[in-house]
Amino acid sequence: MAAVQNQTPILPKLNPTDFQIPTLGECTFPTPPTRSEIISENERILYQSRFSDPSKLNPSLAFEVAGLRDHMFFDPHDINVGIVTCGGLCPGLNDVIRAITYSSLGYGVKKVYGFKFGYRGLSRQGRSYILLDTKNVNTIHYIGGSFLGSSRGPVPPEEMIETLKLLKISVLFTIGGDGTQRGAKFLQDKITEMGEKISVIGIPKTIDNDILYVDKTFGFDTAVEKAREAIICAHVEAKSAPHGLSIVKLMGRDSGFISAKATLASGDVNICLIPEEPFTLEALFKAVESRLLRQNHCVIVVAEGAGAELMAKIQPPVKDASGNLKGGDIGVFLKEQIQAHFKKLDMECTTRYIDPSYTIRACQPNASDAAFCEELGNKAVNSALSGKTGCIVGFWNQQFTLVPFSLITRGRKMVQLDEHMWCTVKAMTTDVTGRQ
Amino acid sequence: MAAVQNQTPILPKLNPTDFQIPTLGECTFPTPPTRSEIISENERILYQSRFSDPSKLNPSLAFEVAGLRDHMFFDPHDINVGIVTCGGLCPGLNDVIRAITYSSLGYGVKKVYGFKFGYRGLSRQGRSYILLDTKNVNTIHYIGGSFLGSSRGPVPPEEMIETLKLLKISVLFTIGGDGTQRGAKFLQDKITEMGEKISVIGIPKTIDNDILYVDKTFGFDTAVEKAREAIICAHVEAKSAPHGLSIVKLMGRDSGFISAKATLASGDVNICLIPEEPFTLEALFKAVESRLLRQNHCVIVVAEGAGAELMAKIQPPVKDASGNLKGGDIGVFLKEQIQAHFKKLDMECTTRYIDPSYTIRACQPNASDAAFCEELGNKAVNSALSGKTGCIVGFWNQQFTLVPFSLITRGRKMVQLDEHMWCTVKAMTTDVTGRQ
Amino acid sequence: MAAVQNQTPILPKLNPTDFQIPTLGECTFPTPPTRSEIISENERILYQSRFSDPSKLNPSLAFEVAGLRDHMFFDPHDINVGIVTCGGLCPGLNDVIRAITYSSLGYGVKKVYGFKFGYRGLSRQGRSYILLDTKNVNTIHYIGGSFLGSSRGPVPPEEMIETLKLLKISVLFTIGGDGTQRGAKFLQDKITEMGEKISVIGIPKTIDNDILYVDKTFGFDTAVEKAREAIICAHVEAKSAPHGLSIVKLMGRDSGFISAKATLASGDVNICLIPEEPFTLEALFKAVESRLLRQNHCVIVVAEGAGAELMAKIQPPVKDASGNLKGGDIGVFLKEQIQAHFKKLDMECTTRYIDPSYTIRACQPNASDAAFCEELGNKAVNSALSGKTGCIVGFWNQQFTLVPFSLITRGRKMVQLDEHMWCTVKAMTTDVTGRQ
Amino acid sequence: MAAVQNQTPILPKLNPTDFQIPTLGECTFPTPPTRSEIISENERILYQSRFSDPSKLNPSLAFEVAGLRDHMFFDPHDINVGIVTCGGLCPGLNDVIRAITYSSLGYGVKKVYGFKFGYRGLSRQGRSYILLDTKNVNTIHYIGGSFLGSSRGPVPPEEMIETLKLLKISVLFTIGGDGTQRGAKFLQDKITEMGEKISVIGIPKTIDNDILYVDKTFGFDTAVEKAREAIICAHVEAKSAPHGLSIVKLMGRDSGFISAKATLASGDVNICLIPEEPFTLEALFKAVESRLLRQNHCVIVVAEGAGAELMAKIQPPVKDASGNLKGGDIGVFLKEQIQAHFKKLDMECTTRYIDPSYTIRACQPNASDAAFCEELGNKAVNSALSGKTGCIVGFWNQQFTLVPFSLITRGRKMVQLDEHMWCTVKAMTTDVTGRQ
Repeated sequence: MAAVQNQTPILPKLNPTDFQIPTLGECTFPTPPTRSEIISENERILYQSRFSDPSKLNPSLAFEVAGLRDHMFFDPHDINVGIVTCGGLCPGLNDVIRAITYSSLGYGVKKVYGFKFGYRGLSRQGRSYILLDTKNVNTIHYIGGSFLGSSRGPVPPEEMIETLKLLKISVLFTIGGDGTQRGAKFLQDKITEMGEKISVIGIPKTIDNDILYVDKTFGFDTAVEKAREAIICAHVEAKSAPHGLSIVKLMGRDSGFISAKATLASGDVNICLIPEEPFTLEALFKAVESRLLRQNHCVIVVAEGAGAELMAKIQPPVKDASGNLKGGDIGVFLKEQIQAHFKKLDMECTTRYIDPSYTIRACQPNASDAAFCEELGNKAVNSALSGKTGCIVGFWNQQFTLVPFSLITRGRKMVQLDEHMWCTVKAMTTDVTGRQ
Repeated sequence: MAAVQNQTPILPKLNPTDFQIPTLGECTFPTPPTRSEIISENERILYQSRFSDPSKLNPSLAFEVAGLRDHMFFDPHDINVGIVTCGGLCPGLNDVIRAITYSSLGYGVKKVYGFKFGYRGLSRQGRSYILLDTKNVNTIHYIGGSFLGSSRGPVPPEEMIETLKLLKISVLFTIGGDGTQRGAKFLQDKITEMGEKISVIGIPKTIDNDILYVDKTFGFDTAVEKAREAIICAHVEAKSAPHGLSIVKLMGRDSGFISAKATLASGDVNICLIPEEPFTLEALFKAVESRLLRQNHCVIVVAEGAGAELMAKIQPPVKDASGNLKGGDIGVFLKEQIQAHFKKLDMECTTRYIDPSYTIRACQPNASDAAFCEELGNKAVNSALSGKTGCIVGFWNQQFTLVPFSLITRGRKMVQLDEHMWCTVKAMTTDVTGRQ
Repeated sequence: MAAVQNQTPILPKLNPTDFQIPTLGECTFPTPPTRSEIISENERILYQSRFSDPSKLNPSLAFEVAGLRDHMFFDPHDINVGIVTCGGLCPGLNDVIRAITYSSLGYGVKKVYGFKFGYRGLSRQGRSYILLDTKNVNTIHYIGGSFLGSSRGPVPPEEMIETLKLLKISVLFTIGGDGTQRGAKFLQDKITEMGEKISVIGIPKTIDNDILYVDKTFGFDTAVEKAREAIICAHVEAKSAPHGLSIVKLMGRDSGFISAKATLASGDVNICLIPEEPFTLEALFKAVESRLLRQNHCVIVVAEGAGAELMAKIQPPVKDASGNLKGGDIGVFLKEQIQAHFKKLDMECTTRYIDPSYTIRACQPNASDAAFCEELGNKAVNSALSGKTGCIVGFWNQQFTLVPFSLITRGRKMVQLDEHMWCTVKAMTTDVTGRQ
Repeated sequence: MAAVQNQTPILPKLNPTDFQIPTLGECTFPTPPTRSEIISENERILYQSRFSDPSKLNPSLAFEVAGLRDHMFFDPHDINVGIVTCGGLCPGLNDVIRAITYSSLGYGVKKVYGFKFGYRGLSRQGRSYILLDTKNVNTIHYIGGSFLGSSRGPVPPEEMIETLKLLKISVLFTIGGDGTQRGAKFLQDKITEMGEKISVIGIPKTIDNDILYVDKTFGFDTAVEKAREAIICAHVEAKSAPHGLSIVKLMGRDSGFISAKATLASGDVNICLIPEEPFTLEALFKAVESRLLRQNHCVIVVAEGAGAELMAKIQPPVKDASGNLKGGDIGVFLKEQIQAHFKKLDMECTTRYIDPSYTIRACQPNASDAAFCEELGNKAVNSALSGKTGCIVGFWNQQFTLVPFSLITRGRKMVQLDEHMWCTVKAMTTDVTGRQ
């Protein structure tokens, strides 16, 4: 068998300076008595802790630790902070908003501004916010979505700075995906350029769990839970029909984490297709055929970004009304291709197509995600008070880290085809790569 | 305001004889000692118990009571029984299969045959079955779907009778919707014609709860539960977006029970569209517009059969590859119409379309449905042993009843626009009928 | 086998006048245009619709229908209303509060007062309330419990009337069990005596579903759902241990509805003990023994009020610190008795005791209960506006009814041992009554 | 404020040899073509990757990586394997059993023996097993508990070896807690002593997540999920009563992981008590009092092992019938102490005590745990085939590791009071340590 090709795009080589966190200046305000862990400035979490050759362990590639320092840059009683949520929904948004609000107010912060509908709430024209307090955020974690509303799209940094200065905001927490954090980077660059003392701290949000240099992002666990529910239904449908075939399309435009993990969690998936591993229709047809004949039913999980090239060849993207190129839907495409194939074979195949879509992302976080959000919010506030800026709060080897915007926006994390997770998926499912 | 037009098609006037249950003959075998209720043959459940004029109460229109009699037609130790599940999935199928199996074996029945994939398992060519016992059905109620498999499509009564006689089956339990029970009626007619002593007892299955003369069918409650989950997500999506509009399409080709009850259960639906009440696009656009401007978000629930005439006018059905007329999807249609409308208005409207489809019907029954299935299976066996045939086990005014196939197959139950359920829905939602 | 003794205490014979609903006076205010069902005053729902002898059908024993009349007693724009929740928690309280608030404000009612912590919020000393509006009740249905708080204990009617008059409240909605409605009756009697024009409308709340003359109360369905979850765990524990025995204690001091229905829903219970049917320890020991030897595991469900006399004999109630007689806990009692028995036998028996207690009553209502609460609140407001008083909103034969306080407070509904539900339970479980 | 005392007992200093995994001998059978990751023997996962001083990073303290090697010790087609589950239930047991079975059979293993009810199934007298295949384990992951049954108690290694040899079993997978793995160590020691070529591989099972040198064990995540549900109910009860106080007792005899993480996940806990941090009754009373006066309600979470010394002083353990010392129940103890305190104060306090017990451990695993179990089972089989023995499959820094029995049985993992998780808990809750 040929060696597996790792599909991850080559990322630029890492340098020690890539891990350096910008700061607003010296911390001179003594941290008030606390039971919290006080992090010393030279503590680090090693980036790469798996090794064959010990001499290759590189301690200069390491993350800073998120959390309180023995001195603060800001006196919390003197400042206001702001929160904004951008992009698509993700389970746990309200938990993060609540945690930041409670934590900030716990330190004595004067006002917590919650901007409405993403960056547009910080724009000149769309300026809009809610003053958050322990009363109005008290029960928001029982409900999915974002209490602040969310939307996509950038706003010129100058406008956002204008708003921040107008409201005397010293810290802005940006909850969003890599696009959002790219926007946060522009904002922080401009702030630095203008010499303002405003911290910008990101909390990475991606239901796909594809942020670089971060083990885990909030909402992913919950998404897998919901995805498993859809797969269980798909399996039931397939088993209850003569030659039943169910196709479940899951999130994952660039990475197959949800699909792979939901496949592991379900135990009932026969074929798992992700963007990182190409497949051929011939191998797929053959796998389904053989499975139906042998076991009478078949379950396929497909990430929305899987097979993009394959589909583009057979069904080239078309221009929509606005002139944008619009590709097909891989789930619908596979359903039609497979149905046509079995019609040609004159073989029965009862096909069901399930696209759980929004019901995966609009729900409440599960307990694991909720606990994680609580800590994320807490670490974000701690780090901001310590004068950190230009970075997100990450999680690496069970520790909360700080990772520069410039590092996480270099690309997207992908499923490693030769690592344990995907290997276990392969052991449980049928290979349709068409390789010998 | 104009009086509400009740949309229910006029059903033939009922006669006392319409309620009469066919029997296989005299019951001569004494019912063994039991703690079960012994029903006397002249007990009845009144059909219509709401009245204005007491003199109009008509005791001759009344249902027989399902359950054990003091004598049985069959000696259970002498017979085999069969079970078949037909049509689409519905939560609770396995619970009914399990209850019939346990109950039959409890009476000492020799063999319980479970036919595979609907009536086709009883056909000459597709003949296929599993012998059911307390071991192989023991845990099937933890899983959705049908343990026996299901499929659509009729089989000639002669072939089915051939199978029944071959396997010496004295009772066939047909679990399915009105189509299935129509098939069961043909089968029972043929059996009568041939003078066979085989009972055919139906257990009505319709996730839409639209079987005539039956208050409640299994699976409906669970479907509403799942539909509510989808609506909660829709509501969260709508509230989290600027001018967020969510459209949820639910089951209900001919009746709006799931949509209406899920609307009541959710408390967050603004517009509810069902097949029984026509609406206009103009009124719908206006309602959405006004709601978005006032409350910033809007949730629409639409039953799949709603607005069929309206859609047909604007988007006439087209012939598919097989030459069948194929209409559009009301959910997608509404989404496109509304998006086009707001584009024309140049008003922002972030639209989400949610179609929970199979995830509503492939799940396990909730506790209420599970308990109901247990009783249904039990009453079905009791009634069959008493020599009843040609009827389904119904539920009316909290009692299990017997209803002739000929009665329930006369049409479909519809939401009564002037009764309490729909009235409460109307009180909670915006009217888009376009009537003044 | 001896005939089953029905344990329900003999209730006083019903008279037609028992069904009569008090009213505040003539309805002179024309009901505004509505799409709601307009109920005519002489519409009725027959009390008893099951019959053997048609001549015994008695149309004079029938319930009034809840809902709007063509004229109202109150002009909604002129009045304030109040809501109070009393007694233990029950899933759906917040849904009823929300439905009454939305419905009242929908009719133009001026103010909706929500009294805090039961009747004490209406007392002179404990007077305390929240003004309810569509904003503060908007999301309360996502959370269990009572938004208003609840507590037990009566308050003198005079004090409550003082509060009602002070706040110019014309309708008080009392959400609570039979104790609460007895209090509501005293209040309404006093109001009548004083000639005040204040309506008192009850919404019956009993998680045990034991209100007389009402088919179903809100929260019961949800309680059965949660009870089933506990039973599933109990079953898993029992099956996973050598000679595993699990005992689940469920609510039901006077009636076994939750236990019986959860037994039906679970399909895995071997012995079900309810207050209505006595049992003997000898029969119980024997049943457990034989089950463990045959099947290796056993699941017992016991309602908290079951076996009270039996336990009192062996373990007489003792006086607690306050001098009150305090009986034992039947669940713990059975666990200890059975363990002692098997120790004596020197037979292995791994016993688990599960008491899900508050986790059954503090949760959100399921969809079926939530939809029911929505309608209950709506009918309560409709009925109050029509000048009805001194009654609760019931549910009978799929219709919302009005039932006088005086009727429902005559006793408690009990499981009928010879009706279909208990008969099915008996068919599924082992008899331990010790009768031959 | 005084520095926090870390309560973790001092563990023996680690040596590089402590990490060494025993093997059965040289691997000579070439691994068949696979898409799985092939681990080279010198790959390691660093034990300690957080550092202040880079020169202190110690690559000789590192875990071996679990997984396939390029050669195998066993030819899978030649061997039988066995599985045993011991101790209390934990969500995911069936998932691990299923994963090991599927994975073993996938490699061509001849027979998979599942021993009944823990080690006793391997004893001379209690010898009992099921032959596992893809059919009988196919749906066991839909149900909690252990399909094989479980029990506590050791069996002499000689008897177990007799059974293994009798059935020609080459690998035994021991799924259980530290007691079980201690037993597995004795067994493996004896096997080595006797020169047998039998591998013993442990899969660590502890719902409390307190296995040393393992980041995460299966079932913990699910337990936290269920614990959160109980806390939500407790919070609802407390908020709905006048001066409502709810106490939730959770698992955790020696460690507070479930309590701490469930507190984070809930966001509604006011006081969290764990074994690792002592507290005083005075501080507790004061905290509850002040909270009730300020916020009217209070939620306490207490791990079963918290406050053991405190309780022992006030309520010394008593000898039970068998002469064993039996301590009290901290939950009940706190409830009584607090009630007495408030009675003395004559201050109202409506106390609810919730002990979710078995309902936390007998349920199905959530998706995250299920996926983890799938990988655990897979890695266990891979590692056994490579001739590894005397170790468990661990998880460290997102990688599956092998950890010697001798290392994990040195003590128990405890909550680190100065690390991020407990710090965040402290930030959210009230301190009752009584320290100034």
